[in-house]
This record gives sequence, structure tokens and C-alpha cells, in this order.
Amino acid sequence: MLEPERILRLEGDAVVFLDQRRLPLEEVEVRCHSSAEVADAIRSMVVRGAPAIGVAAAYAVALAAERGEDLESADRVLRESRPTAVNLAWALDEMRGDPSRDHAQRIHRDEVQRCRRMASHAAELLAPGTRALTHCNAGGLATGGYGSAVGALLTAYERGLLEHVWVDETRPLLQGARLTAWELEAASVPHAVIADSAAASLMARGQVDCVITGADRIAANGDTANKIGTYSLAVLADHHEVPFYVVAPSTTVDLGTATGSGIPIEERDPAEITERFTAHNPAFDMTPAELISAIVTEAGVHRSPYERSLAGTVAA
Amino acid sequence: MLEPERILRLEGDAVVFLDQRRLPLEEVEVRCHSSAEVADAIRSMVVRGAPAIGVAAAYAVALAAERGEDLESADRVLRESRPTAVNLAWALDEMRGDPSRDHAQRIHRDEVQRCRRMASHAAELLAPGTRALTHCNAGGLATGGYGSAVGALLTAYERGLLEHVWVDETRPLLQGARLTAWELEAASVPHAVIADSAAASLMARGQVDCVITGADRIAANGDTANKIGTYSLAVLADHHEVPFYVVAPSTTVDLGTATGSGIPIEERDPAEITERFTAHNPAFDMTPAELISAIVTEAGVHRSPYERSLAGTVAA
Repeated sequence: MLEPERILRLEGDAVVFLDQRRLPLEEVEVRCHSSAEVADAIRSMVVRGAPAIGVAAAYAVALAAERGEDLESADRVLRESRPTAVNLAWALDEMRGDPSRDHAQRIHRDEVQRCRRMASHAAELLAPGTRALTHCNAGGLATGGYGSAVGALLTAYERGLLEHVWVDETRPLLQGARLTAWELEAASVPHAVIADSAAASLMARGQVDCVITGADRIAANGDTANKIGTYSLAVLADHHEVPFYVVAPSTTVDLGTATGSGIPIEERDPAEITERFTAHNPAFDMTPAELISAIVTEAGVHRSPYERSLAGTVAA
Repeated sequence: MLEPERILRLEGDAVVFLDQRRLPLEEVEVRCHSSAEVADAIRSMVVRGAPAIGVAAAYAVALAAERGEDLESADRVLRESRPTAVNLAWALDEMRGDPSRDHAQRIHRDEVQRCRRMASHAAELLAPGTRALTHCNAGGLATGGYGSAVGALLTAYERGLLEHVWVDETRPLLQGARLTAWELEAASVPHAVIADSAAASLMARGQVDCVITGADRIAANGDTANKIGTYSLAVLADHHEVPFYVVAPSTTVDLGTATGSGIPIEERDPAEITERFTAHNPAFDMTPAELISAIVTEAGVHRSPYERSLAGTVAA
């Protein structure tokens, strides 16, 4: 397993990140010396993944407090760095009461512990011989350690339940082909990267037993925002009668947002798609709850109706 | 409109291709001096698109005849250069009776004429203000001139029916982002390139009025093989009640293959997806006839049951 402190840590006077933009070709670190620099790192996706950017923001607040920055201003800049993941707001709210380094590190440790617990719950959903399909990177890199959907796959593999993982390459930034494949290879989990558009034909040929993804924000009714293409997979899974699972910590559940229509969807630079022609580049999409077979948090396996099953979920 | 002879031609002792691998960054030509070199150009996708590779094979046979090559051997090498598109076999069968340069040029001219006719039929399916979504490149580059699905869009635009085109970038080789966008820009048709996985959320938001693609081979029952991702779009269109149209010349219809299960699906080099990790790279997928709202050939608009409506279709 990728050590949590290798992914991100507060070290001396800097928040240090493994630069996820340059993986898997290079393993280099980025050092941020202010909350503004951390906000830049979040915006530019040096660090990405809803739980990981929450942890990054917590470290940024601790750094800001130690440096004597204006904490209100730091909070605002961090909060606005990316709009869709709710973990950013959650971590910033948490840090308001206690902006200490210890607190940030505890948030980080807790997030990894949540991953372990949800992975254990999620693995129980998988039958022996499962061939799973995953999208984007919901691995240790995305959560600060172990991973949500990928954590579930690692646990299932250790339990002898997982035969193969289809990894959506995940355009435009290729988090699947670059990050998930890198994590699965490190863990020796059998896998193959595919073009995102190939998932449907694999399902039609009976080669996908379940789809398993992370989430950036889950509304109170179970509607889930996640990387662009997740909704597409949910529709395809429904058509092929393949179960579709979301694995995410309670810090990703936003009980204050009633439905998916209240979740802001980030539009990113069209140049991520093509620099030569006009492009449209939504970074996320919204999967309605009725297409989700189960949502797994550290509290357990939640089933529809999610209003009720998610209501008791609060971050530990 | 891109001149047919700019896309490919027989000139002196060479078949000359606009190198589609290097568009849109560079407009360079590749000159092939034997049928074996043309087969290489087809395999490596200097020229691609089912009708265009049929025309390329016809020119290669004419060149082979003029050079005194063994025509049986030339036929075999060309026929095996790519497995899925049936146009290759059709053009080679045509050239057996008359392997002359005139005949190859007539096949090329006829293919462009078919495009004009099917575009006119297909445009009648579109209502004013249509926002269409297309996949891969079914443009002039793919047919040797004017295009099938893109031809239909050009005709619809001239008739004032087309408002916007969503262009799937079409991983792994980006024929949409590189070739279709290039053709639409040249024709001043409003368009935006999207990640393939973004199509579903555009449909969910009511921003797609129809999906329109070409085909590599259409079985007698209407099952259609086309670029990987086409089947995915057909399922998504069905879920969102968006019409799904296939536009292709009769040279793409294979009445000798009863259903899609008889169509060979080419597996291409996994390195097209990623050079770093294990990958799986099917180049095509198969869309069952029941997901296709209409198939448009130069003979007109065909509706289900396709066994009957396609039966009278033969290449002119």
C-alpha cells in the first residue's frame, strides 16, 4: 500500500504532495508554503480526489495558522478552489474549531481508517471470481491512503474474490490509465486499461460483474456526483443488469443538499480536451440514485431509499 | 468540401493519401508504390473509414495490374489488411472483373455520389434546430469525399436544420477531435468536441436531439459494427429516448452476414491505449438492430425490420 504520508503530508513549513499530474512517469513532490499555494495545487490537480483534497485543505489551514495567515481568507480561497467535492467544505468546517497540525493529521488518519472500513463492507458485495470495472481513480491517491472504490478492490483481492479489474482510462486527464493502473500494478491486482467507450461492449459480452466507483459528493437522496463518465456507466450497467456500486466515506455525503440538482458541476478548461478546436469539458456528472445498486460508506452498505439509509451517516 | 482527390487518388505510379494520422497538425501526403504499401497504409490508418479503405484497395489493385504484380496475391494481402469493414472485400470483388485505373476511379466517384444521396435522405430525418452528436469520423476523409454521417450533417446545415454538433473525441485515436472537428470547422458548422464519456450527461440535460454515426459493416438484420463506443451511444440514446441513426452506403451492407455475431471485431495494439500498463483495445463494437432508429443508405431511409428493408440494397 502507498503510504499516506507519501501522498500528502505537512512537513516542517510545507504541505508536500506527490504530484499526481506527473504519475506514472515521474514520482516527484510539490511543496506548498502557504494556503494559497495549496489552493493552486488543488485547482491544478497536483492533488485530486474528494477525500484527498479535504485532507489537503486541512493541512493548508494548519499551515496557515502556524504562519499567522488570515484564516478567514485562507478558508475562502481553499473553499473555492474546486466546487464539486463536498469534502473540501467538510474539512474546512472541521478545522474552524481547531486549526492545529494535530487536528489535520487526525483528519488524514481518520480518512484512511474510513477507507479500510468501507472497503471491508464493500468487499462483502462481491462474489468470488468478480470482474469489476472502475472509473477514474478512487484509490489511495484520491483519499490520502488505501482508497475508496480501489480500496474495496484491494480488500476483495486479498479475500480471493476478485479476478480482474477493467480500468476506464478516464478522459480527459487519464486518472484511470495513469493512477488506478499504477496502484493496481503495485498491488499485483490483474487489470487492463480500456478506452472509456469500450465499457458497454464488455458488459454486452458478459465480462463485467459489477461497476464500482468513488464519489465527489452524494446528496441526501443518494444522487451522486462523480467524474464525468460515471453516469454513462450507471446507465450502461442498468441496461446490462450489472450492479453499480458507489464507495465513499461519510465525508462525501452532503445531507444539506437534497438532490443531485443542487450539486455544482465544475467546468474545466476546454484545452484539456483539445487545444485546436472548440470543446466542452464538464469535469463531473450526476448519477441519479435510482441507478445506484448500493452506496457503501464506513458505516456500512446503504440501499435505496437512500434518504433514510444515509440520514444516520455522519463523519466519525 | 474537401476534394475527393485530395483524400486519395491514383497519380502516375503511386496511390497518394492525405495522411490521416497527422491531421489536423500537418497536411502531408503518403505515396504508395505497390499494393503491399497500400495494405500497410490501410493497416496503419494513413487512410481509414470503411468506404475510403474500399476505394484505396481498388486503386491498389489498379496499380498492381499496371505494375504486373500477381493480382491474386495483391487481393489477399489487401483483403486481410483490416478485418471489420466489408467495403474492402466489396471493392476487391468489384475489381476482379476489371482491374483498370478507370474502374477504380469510377468506384471512387460512385462512393462520393452515394454519400450525396444518403446525406440528402438522412437530412430529412432532422428537425430544424437539431443538435446532433456524432462519433469517430464518418466524414469525407472516411468515405473518399463528402462523408456519410458528417455528409448528412453538412447537408442538414445547408438546409438550415442543424444548430450544433457534439463531436465525440473518440479514443484512442481521436478521429473525432482530429478529423471530424477539422472537417466541421472547414465547413463552418458550429461544433464542440467532448470526451466520449460526456455524451450521457448531455443527453440527460436534453442537449442532444439525435445521434448519427457511420458504419463499418451492417449485417443483413441491421446489426451494425462501427467504431468502439458506438454501441455505448446507442444504449445511452435508447435510455434517453434520443433517435440513433446510422448513415452508410450500400457498400457497407453485408447481406451475406446474417447478424452482428458474424462480424469480426478487430483487436488493435494495446499501446494505442497505454504503453505503460496492460490494456485491451477492441477497435469496433456491435450495435444490435433494435437500438437503431433508422439506417440510411443511398437507396433511402430503412426502418426495422431491416431484413426486409435492406434486402433490396445493392451497391449501384
